[in-house]
Amino acid sequence: MREAHHDELEAIGARLVDMAHQVGSAMGRATTAVLTGDLALDKTVITGDEQVDTLQQELEDRAITLLARQQPVATDLRIVITSLRMSADLERSGDLAKHVAKLAQLRSPQRAVPQDLNDTIAEMGDLAQRLMTKAADILITRDVDRALAMEQDDDHMDTLHRTLFQHLLDNHWKHGVETAVDVTLTGRYYERFADHAVAVANRVVYLVTGEHTDNLTPPPVVPSGNLP
Amino acid sequence: MREAHHDELEAIGARLVDMAHQVGSAMGRATTAVLTGDLALDKTVITGDEQVDTLQQELEDRAITLLARQQPVATDLRIVITSLRMSADLERSGDLAKHVAKLAQLRSPQRAVPQDLNDTIAEMGDLAQRLMTKAADILITRDVDRALAMEQDDDHMDTLHRTLFQHLLDNHWKHGVETAVDVTLTGRYYERFADHAVAVANRVVYLVTGEHTDNLTPPPVVPSGNLP
Repeated sequence: MREAHHDELEAIGARLVDMAHQVGSAMGRATTAVLTGDLALDKTVITGDEQVDTLQQELEDRAITLLARQQPVATDLRIVITSLRMSADLERSGDLAKHVAKLAQLRSPQRAVPQDLNDTIAEMGDLAQRLMTKAADILITRDVDRALAMEQDDDHMDTLHRTLFQHLLDNHWKHGVETAVDVTLTGRYYERFADHAVAVANRVVYLVTGEHTDNLTPPPVVPSGNLP
Repeated sequence: MREAHHDELEAIGARLVDMAHQVGSAMGRATTAVLTGDLALDKTVITGDEQVDTLQQELEDRAITLLARQQPVATDLRIVITSLRMSADLERSGDLAKHVAKLAQLRSPQRAVPQDLNDTIAEMGDLAQRLMTKAADILITRDVDRALAMEQDDDHMDTLHRTLFQHLLDNHWKHGVETAVDVTLTGRYYERFADHAVAVANRVVYLVTGEHTDNLTPPPVVPSGNLP
């Protein structure tokens, strides 16, 4: 009985790692699609999101079956509940990758993001993907120090987000309001994606140490960047 | 034993209703703050969000204690797990109300939203609050028909969101890019808030019928509004 219980917990953990890899890869492809206008890539992100949703549903069913049949307590119960939360973070991250892909698709054959923001968007996409890969690694290794260090990567995402706003608010902005709206939303999607990756890592810290880390949902970055 | 178990489920349900009322009221006050620049109101939203976070933490601790001590199965287990999801929706809704309030605060003594959008923002704030009040009622009554009817209110939110974008993309837009960014983010906060209210109602449908309703996270509204 005890064996079955732990096998099942491991299977749930492996499923979370799969989900993290899938949504990280999806955000990478969505970014390339935004930068290149490659609609075939877009489609893989959009159809891939259905698979992520299915993975989440299966994971939840498994977790609930485990709770009902094996009635874990203490640490194991905490692992199951925390896994449900992490799967919700990852499912939402998949949605955000899909939103980026859909924006690229909607503006095709034009590009949603102007050329002079390419480098910033490329860097945000790259960082988003790396954060999610780290979250996947931390799910496997349970490395608390590495998890806590993710806050610095997230600070870098906030810096990139501010750079995006600085471009928007520059007096030389010449791409019109529609593009400003697209860039605002795209920036927000990357920022939220990074928040969810950090949240997954923080939940691992909670599982290992029993302590909640603060800052699971930092305030949003806004143009002038001087929120308290 | 059985009695204690059901009392505890009822207490969790009552806590969810409290949270829904608090975040609905917070979004109402945040909207008034955006429209009037009333900073005292802003502060009540920002400090109130800490109370919502505390309520969520208490609810989660209660749910986990219930799982550990009473080991519910079948319907009761489903109620506990779904309550945890609903509390996450409500906690996030509180964050969104806080984001609206902070934007108002940041732009003070200027106003974040230009005068000609007052009516639309007022209507979005009013609808957001009404959707959350309905979600609270549905938590009490478990009225499936009323829960399903909330999709129509949510469609109305999408329509208001499109109206906002039409203003932004109008050639007569004269408020500059910074205000366009503020309006884009504000619109997104209301839209997501409404999504969470609908998600709470849909989760009640799932509890009563065992069926998942689709459309828990509809695609985002974007300027030209013609997403698939």
